[in-house]
Amino acid sequence: MAALAPGKTVGILGGGQLARMLAMAAANLGLKTHIYAPDPDSPAFAVAGARTVARYDDEAALTSFAALVDVVTYEFENVPAEAIAVLEPLRPVRPGGRALAITQDRLTEKQFARDLGFATAPFAEVADAGGLARAVAQLGRPAILKTRRFGYDGKGQASVREGSDLAVVFRSLGQASILEGVVPFAREVSVVAARALDGAFRAFPVCENEHEGGILGVTRVPAAIRPETEAEAVAIARAIADALDYVGVLAVELFVVPGTAERPAETLVVNEIAPRVHNSGHWTLGGAATSQFEQHIRAVCGWPLGSTRRFGSILMRNLIGAEADEWADILAEEGASLHLYGKAGALPGRKMGHVTRVLPDETGR
Amino acid sequence: MAALAPGKTVGILGGGQLARMLAMAAANLGLKTHIYAPDPDSPAFAVAGARTVARYDDEAALTSFAALVDVVTYEFENVPAEAIAVLEPLRPVRPGGRALAITQDRLTEKQFARDLGFATAPFAEVADAGGLARAVAQLGRPAILKTRRFGYDGKGQASVREGSDLAVVFRSLGQASILEGVVPFAREVSVVAARALDGAFRAFPVCENEHEGGILGVTRVPAAIRPETEAEAVAIARAIADALDYVGVLAVELFVVPGTAERPAETLVVNEIAPRVHNSGHWTLGGAATSQFEQHIRAVCGWPLGSTRRFGSILMRNLIGAEADEWADILAEEGASLHLYGKAGALPGRKMGHVTRVLPDETGR
Repeated sequence: MAALAPGKTVGILGGGQLARMLAMAAANLGLKTHIYAPDPDSPAFAVAGARTVARYDDEAALTSFAALVDVVTYEFENVPAEAIAVLEPLRPVRPGGRALAITQDRLTEKQFARDLGFATAPFAEVADAGGLARAVAQLGRPAILKTRRFGYDGKGQASVREGSDLAVVFRSLGQASILEGVVPFAREVSVVAARALDGAFRAFPVCENEHEGGILGVTRVPAAIRPETEAEAVAIARAIADALDYVGVLAVELFVVPGTAERPAETLVVNEIAPRVHNSGHWTLGGAATSQFEQHIRAVCGWPLGSTRRFGSILMRNLIGAEADEWADILAEEGASLHLYGKAGALPGRKMGHVTRVLPDETGR
Repeated sequence: MAALAPGKTVGILGGGQLARMLAMAAANLGLKTHIYAPDPDSPAFAVAGARTVARYDDEAALTSFAALVDVVTYEFENVPAEAIAVLEPLRPVRPGGRALAITQDRLTEKQFARDLGFATAPFAEVADAGGLARAVAQLGRPAILKTRRFGYDGKGQASVREGSDLAVVFRSLGQASILEGVVPFAREVSVVAARALDGAFRAFPVCENEHEGGILGVTRVPAAIRPETEAEAVAIARAIADALDYVGVLAVELFVVPGTAERPAETLVVNEIAPRVHNSGHWTLGGAATSQFEQHIRAVCGWPLGSTRRFGSILMRNLIGAEADEWADILAEEGASLHLYGKAGALPGRKMGHVTRVLPDETGR
């Protein structure tokens, strides 16, 4: 398919803040948007020209949606495979079903990264409580049990510590899972990058992330890593994107493990692959020449990728739950850029917005 | 009135590209938007949560609109005074009716600037063909006859040259007009600035504009003027904003007249006051820490103003009519940031979009 022309319609599955920021990026490029989401209160509806309120397994609604859009993308990796199976014969779906199939299952994702030759946390499949006992015998304690599917923001996880009752731990998740050994990392970084329809690849500067209670709290750019570590992180993301024949923005979360006396170089461990725009790329909105949202829209429309130059040193902080009540103080802070997602209820753990601070620096030009 | 809280609704009169970019800025701050415009194909509708399609003299529609919004603003200065008269008792209208009344009439606008002590082009009121003859006798030729109201982008203007038949010139406009003498300017600059509800004032760096056929073609930042000229331009904008008790973003277009042997300093002549976000401020979208659209939303919501720091040297070019067909080349250009307004027909003279180029520089930090 040739490049989409301005005036065409981008269909987006999902109606949360990522879809909302994607829709605004598309509008800014003269594209129309159509949001498909089950929740009638989806924040993305307010900035899109058209909406479908329907479940992801509603075949008739998906078919009608496909007829009204020119390309389909999505804001989250848990789109059911069945929805993609309905849409893919009708319209280009970018990134495609293969990226989803691999990344929506933690086990296949880890196997995929390992097959590409990259380090991952030690892991073992856990089908039942007996499987958990065998996995713990193999990986040792402490370790983390995670559901294979539908986990996000620290949800769907349980710790296996000394003395943990494995039957209780397994029941707390109660589904097919994966046990992961603990990685002695010094810092968490992520590569937010895009691959175009023609295979061109561009990464934003690698960013460093701090999680709080399983949820991303703060992102800093540049990451405090060596240039060769940064280059290696980007190379990993590129290899993953190429292997998936990926089109769009993806994020690869990596652990940075410090060197040892015998092996002084930092090493990188692939933690997670997100087949979508990513919270750790929010700083690009106002902090880089092209936002990750515009970059994703460019890619899925078959357009060339934009400049990933950053405008300074960046600090992005998520506003979780009641933290969004700080809006007035943030607005009054010189150089702070407030983004709120238009969500009604500031529930604990809910991502309500973020604030970006762009500081002049000597290296970001 | 206290500051609006996120989640409240900003009502915008007008549905063109300025309203579209205002609506996206509001959404980014967690506000809802409601666009009021007569044209059912208004580009702003696609990014707003609610719309009213009605004429500006539809009192019932205006009243219903007011009931659904928390503050009213507008994207253009030709909002009928009658519409404001309906809305002002119901909701805060920012900037207010006084700013509109003065700026929507070229004669009162010039008198207002002169009364503040600022230079304007020489001008004379022209009520009829006989008045034009008297005005030409006073100001000389060449001169420009302009309608007092509803002129924009070079429309509603006619030249008075040597040999022009004044009766023909007057008939070509056929309404109450103003004759303006020609100012021997070296360059055109504009100050895009904001005044907050509490009177705080912030100007973006002064920009330099080139018009082509009466329509803004190119904006450059910084303007090639002396620092003291820049400071004087900002002081003029501030005095105008204060005199209007203005709330929101306004633009003041100024002519820079070169110094002479007797009077070497550059002088500034007030050309036009726009009580709204302005085409010459489009570069702030991606080129400054706060866009003019966010700045306007902040002001009309009673919020503090944001940083006006620019991210580099800027070149903004309008895409007029068929120039928007260059979109693919612009997307492929490193560092060029494309903005398209989602308009269907690329008619000659129609503003279809703009492209911003942000270049690193030594002074823009």
